[in-house]
Amino acid sequence: MNLYLPIICGILALIFAFAFSSGITKESAGNDRMKEIAGYIHDGAMAFLMREYKYLIIFIVAVAVLIIIAIDIKTAICFIFGAIFSICAGYFGMKVATKANVRTAEAARTGQDKALKIAFSGGAVMGLSVVGLGILGLTIFYVVFGNDINVVTGFGLGASSIALFARVGGGIYTKAADVGADLVGKVEAGIPEDDPRNPAVIADNVGDNVGDVAGMGADLFESYVGSIISALTLGYTLFSNDKTKLIFPLILSSIGVLASIIGILIARRSKGDNPQKALNTGTYIGGALVIISTFILSSNIFGNYRVFGAILSGLIVGTLIGKVTEIYTSADYKYVKKIARQSETGSATTIISGLAVGMYSTMIPIIFIAIAVLFSFYIMGGASDVAMGLYGISLAAVGMLSTTGLTVAVDAYGPIADNAGGIAEMSELPSSVREITDKLDSVGNTTAAIGKGFAIGSAALTALALFASYAQKTNLNSINLLTPGTLVGLLLGAMLPFLFASMTMESVGKAANEMIEEVRRQFKEIPGLMEGKETPDYKKCVDISTAAALKEMILPGILAILVPIIIGILLGAEALGGLIGGAVSSGVLIAIFMANSGGAWDNAKKYIETGVHGGKGSNAHKAAVVGDTVGDPFKDTSGPAMNILIKLMTIVSLVFAPVIAAYGGVLLNLFK
Amino acid sequence: MNLYLPIICGILALIFAFAFSSGITKESAGNDRMKEIAGYIHDGAMAFLMREYKYLIIFIVAVAVLIIIAIDIKTAICFIFGAIFSICAGYFGMKVATKANVRTAEAARTGQDKALKIAFSGGAVMGLSVVGLGILGLTIFYVVFGNDINVVTGFGLGASSIALFARVGGGIYTKAADVGADLVGKVEAGIPEDDPRNPAVIADNVGDNVGDVAGMGADLFESYVGSIISALTLGYTLFSNDKTKLIFPLILSSIGVLASIIGILIARRSKGDNPQKALNTGTYIGGALVIISTFILSSNIFGNYRVFGAILSGLIVGTLIGKVTEIYTSADYKYVKKIARQSETGSATTIISGLAVGMYSTMIPIIFIAIAVLFSFYIMGGASDVAMGLYGISLAAVGMLSTTGLTVAVDAYGPIADNAGGIAEMSELPSSVREITDKLDSVGNTTAAIGKGFAIGSAALTALALFASYAQKTNLNSINLLTPGTLVGLLLGAMLPFLFASMTMESVGKAANEMIEEVRRQFKEIPGLMEGKETPDYKKCVDISTAAALKEMILPGILAILVPIIIGILLGAEALGGLIGGAVSSGVLIAIFMANSGGAWDNAKKYIETGVHGGKGSNAHKAAVVGDTVGDPFKDTSGPAMNILIKLMTIVSLVFAPVIAAYGGVLLNLFK
Repeated sequence: MNLYLPIICGILALIFAFAFSSGITKESAGNDRMKEIAGYIHDGAMAFLMREYKYLIIFIVAVAVLIIIAIDIKTAICFIFGAIFSICAGYFGMKVATKANVRTAEAARTGQDKALKIAFSGGAVMGLSVVGLGILGLTIFYVVFGNDINVVTGFGLGASSIALFARVGGGIYTKAADVGADLVGKVEAGIPEDDPRNPAVIADNVGDNVGDVAGMGADLFESYVGSIISALTLGYTLFSNDKTKLIFPLILSSIGVLASIIGILIARRSKGDNPQKALNTGTYIGGALVIISTFILSSNIFGNYRVFGAILSGLIVGTLIGKVTEIYTSADYKYVKKIARQSETGSATTIISGLAVGMYSTMIPIIFIAIAVLFSFYIMGGASDVAMGLYGISLAAVGMLSTTGLTVAVDAYGPIADNAGGIAEMSELPSSVREITDKLDSVGNTTAAIGKGFAIGSAALTALALFASYAQKTNLNSINLLTPGTLVGLLLGAMLPFLFASMTMESVGKAANEMIEEVRRQFKEIPGLMEGKETPDYKKCVDISTAAALKEMILPGILAILVPIIIGILLGAEALGGLIGGAVSSGVLIAIFMANSGGAWDNAKKYIETGVHGGKGSNAHKAAVVGDTVGDPFKDTSGPAMNILIKLMTIVSLVFAPVIAAYGGVLLNLFK
Repeated sequence: MNLYLPIICGILALIFAFAFSSGITKESAGNDRMKEIAGYIHDGAMAFLMREYKYLIIFIVAVAVLIIIAIDIKTAICFIFGAIFSICAGYFGMKVATKANVRTAEAARTGQDKALKIAFSGGAVMGLSVVGLGILGLTIFYVVFGNDINVVTGFGLGASSIALFARVGGGIYTKAADVGADLVGKVEAGIPEDDPRNPAVIADNVGDNVGDVAGMGADLFESYVGSIISALTLGYTLFSNDKTKLIFPLILSSIGVLASIIGILIARRSKGDNPQKALNTGTYIGGALVIISTFILSSNIFGNYRVFGAILSGLIVGTLIGKVTEIYTSADYKYVKKIARQSETGSATTIISGLAVGMYSTMIPIIFIAIAVLFSFYIMGGASDVAMGLYGISLAAVGMLSTTGLTVAVDAYGPIADNAGGIAEMSELPSSVREITDKLDSVGNTTAAIGKGFAIGSAALTALALFASYAQKTNLNSINLLTPGTLVGLLLGAMLPFLFASMTMESVGKAANEMIEEVRRQFKEIPGLMEGKETPDYKKCVDISTAAALKEMILPGILAILVPIIIGILLGAEALGGLIGGAVSSGVLIAIFMANSGGAWDNAKKYIETGVHGGKGSNAHKAAVVGDTVGDPFKDTSGPAMNILIKLMTIVSLVFAPVIAAYGGVLLNLFK
């Protein structure tokens, strides 16, 4: 076995992505009204991307120069291509998603099966682009630079940087639009959701694509690439004489790509009344294929089943964390019901109850992650061979992420179905169409919650694996909490996620306020708008979200990149290790807390809308709407931003490790 | 210099406490109505204490047995007395506070100066009891057990256990009563605050004493004792041949006690229009006395000014953290104004904005703590002598806490003034009286916010110092984040504060719901209540708060004590070190976040009530009330509970260190 396998698998994934894409394009895009609406959304999404790229060019050049000065030109090249590959995945995925949405709506006129197939194919394009470009890019640069994994970490940094823009910027975009559309449209003007008279409605639909398709894709692209890089780095010193073992993480990922393709094909073909079942079947078959292959490979390549054990622990824990998320955020379980009940005594109790559920929900996922870390370390014999144990942790991360293609496909399907519903509404299609898209959408909401749990879990494990790689690269045998530098690093690191959450929440607030002003202005100043005689200025709202999203993410972005470097230089490599440890631990917790509080509030509101506790319009419902509004930036902006923060900080430390190892600790040296 | 000094200072503090107490008792308690109301509050407070003691006896016996089995009987004896001394301080402080409140109201009839003097004397009794009993108890057992500091750690555990009951139970008590009184009384029935027709009004006033006097006192008693124990432990190996250096932490604390007494006497005598200035003058003079004495002692005892530097850093940082708290929580600064402005767009934006401010406010205090840790470590020569550096950190903690007597006095003054206002209202005293108590109360609110910041900062530094003591006692030279056990410990530890916050918030919710039901029932079932013809059943409401507070703190209490022992046994001493590191870092952050979000919401509401953004009754005000209600358990229950959690977990680990060092790591040993 050699490096042809990952290259072939990567290309295969892209071929399937293209095939699905052209299949979608061939479908009918519906009547003129539908095409018009879809055109607005497509143009809005593309406008965001184009504007984002302008910022990105400056950013990429600046960081590349920094890398050239501090490290070398090869790493800078890898960085640039890591960024470009992530951009391509996002561009392609979003372009197809904004075509699939209207075609899903059109297909829903004839029935659910076809609508599901188109929506899911759209999601699959994103999923397969992520893994195809991820594994292809990594392998190419691994080969080009003569298996020098240190250089290839630059690719991971490139991926992380784009994830920052896509996930954090996208998160701000989508929530500014959402809050603006809801507060003025639904609450003040009293028009329904997705009403074409609402000036922010297009921005809202664009936001679903920008945040939930491109943002989620870039997030998992980063985890995917990061986990493989970490495993390759840690394997580098262990297996320098055994090429097959050396490239095992790439082989494992290749298997995962094939399994994902098969899973996607199965999920796409499923028919029947229950779309959830179709998605589940595909996911389980994909997972099972990875497990069986790994079982065989573990014995063939390593001569034992230890590797299999480590990988399996990652896969199982990834799935379990997703499932547990459902318990805390679905109205089928007691937690959401409790929040709904608390809404009867007003919005304050809704908020307290939702915060408590989110905080409580951190316990089980953290215990699962802890078990995966311990199990994958010790099963690999870490008790006597620490390096091998740490390699086991990185394999757990690669294992968890091996079916990323499938996960992203299932995940990106949701916003496409959501968009389809919006288009159906705005184009005044028959209510039967909306019923189908609503059903697809509600499945999408569940998969989104699970996907969010998975994204957090994988980010945590990836960050921990990269953390081990960082220690190895800086020649640290110990990151000792009893040294004051590490302790201070830990405290400062634990603080950063709070700061990041605060900044991103504020950003949503600011952007939403601008949006609210604009929507109010249009309602007031455009005559005939409320009567439906005049089209609102959608583009203006799209512009506001775009500009705000990009402007607001500059400061947190700089923070995430510069703080590790500054702390490393001032307090040294070990203190930087403490910083990462602190940031990862508190970042994961805040991510889970915010995602689940937000998800629980959202579903508590929907639960009340089914008629319980007074139903829509009751006081309980009003309180629940407050919870949902607070939850919006929680679950779609600040929470997911944590994933990026912890991975980005870790990979920045990894890339700049040589500089920090050489020059770090300037401040502490003064005392010596 | 020898151990007579701390004993004399401890006794002196208690003599002053008694003198102030009998001075207060001699003052007039006003007319019959005032005596009746004050009697209800006093009886309610005592009822809470008595019920608490019943639980405490079971708890103390159980833990003492555990200590006898696991460690030895001497430590168990110290534990029991640590608990008893803390109980005595709380009992005495609260008894006097519930006498001072009505006398403050009566004195306010004649003028502000006398009212301030009585209220502040009441607070001083609590403050001097805390430091007097703290230093006396520690020194006595230090002498009795032949300078065996390991045994004396039991005293710290006793203090911590009582703090758990007093602070967490008290926090639940006070907020259940507050929310119940506000939601039904103010919002539903439309009667003013502190109206005697409200059945929960007495419980609310009792809550101020239980939570803010006894709870805060026990919290700082724990920090005070813990920091001294930590410094004595770390100094034990450093200065085994030099008794003066060995007992230096006790000498430093003695000086602090004297300085506190002088500061209190000055603050008490101040006259004039600005009560804030009087309190400040006393505080600054007390601090200055400690600084000057330490400057001399450092050179005399240690032959250099390094020790002075370490202590000074603690004192300065403690003061700065308090001051910074004001910036984020006072309406004089931009943050609270922003929350008030955001209230115009509804309660969701109020909540988001307040959460963002709280999270943002973690940055500066953490940086200050980081600076104090680094400075006190390196100034002591930690770069070449780690043990000496760690001793420096513990001295910073002792320094910060040296003027605890003064801090608690200033802090406990607030709820007494608040209570006085309530009594004035309920007794229908002239509005001029209420004006004076309101003024004293508003000063109390500022000092409370500063006191909260100080409590958090001192808890953090104390926990870090105890953490170093723990490592020394388990013979750990390294708590290495690169071992999976430590990493898992870190993750689990960081999760515990989230869990603790969730549980305590839920507890307040549950207890408040019971209170709401009861108040509604009384309004409905007692004829003539609303007309003021009939007295409500205050006692029932007091009972509900009492029962709920004590019941709801059992689970979190068990958690805080058992988790460190279980993790230590399963994963070993190093992993337990990781657990403490994680818990302290995330606990401090959540403490700051919750305290400041809560304080900021509170003052945003009050700011709107001054007439801005539409003033009282406007939509902005309604939104701000939601923020304030969410903030109540934040700032008065869950936030302060973090202080206890991190100290208690650390001291449990310290006391059980021998067992964990001997038998720990059962689970990991399976893999070996």
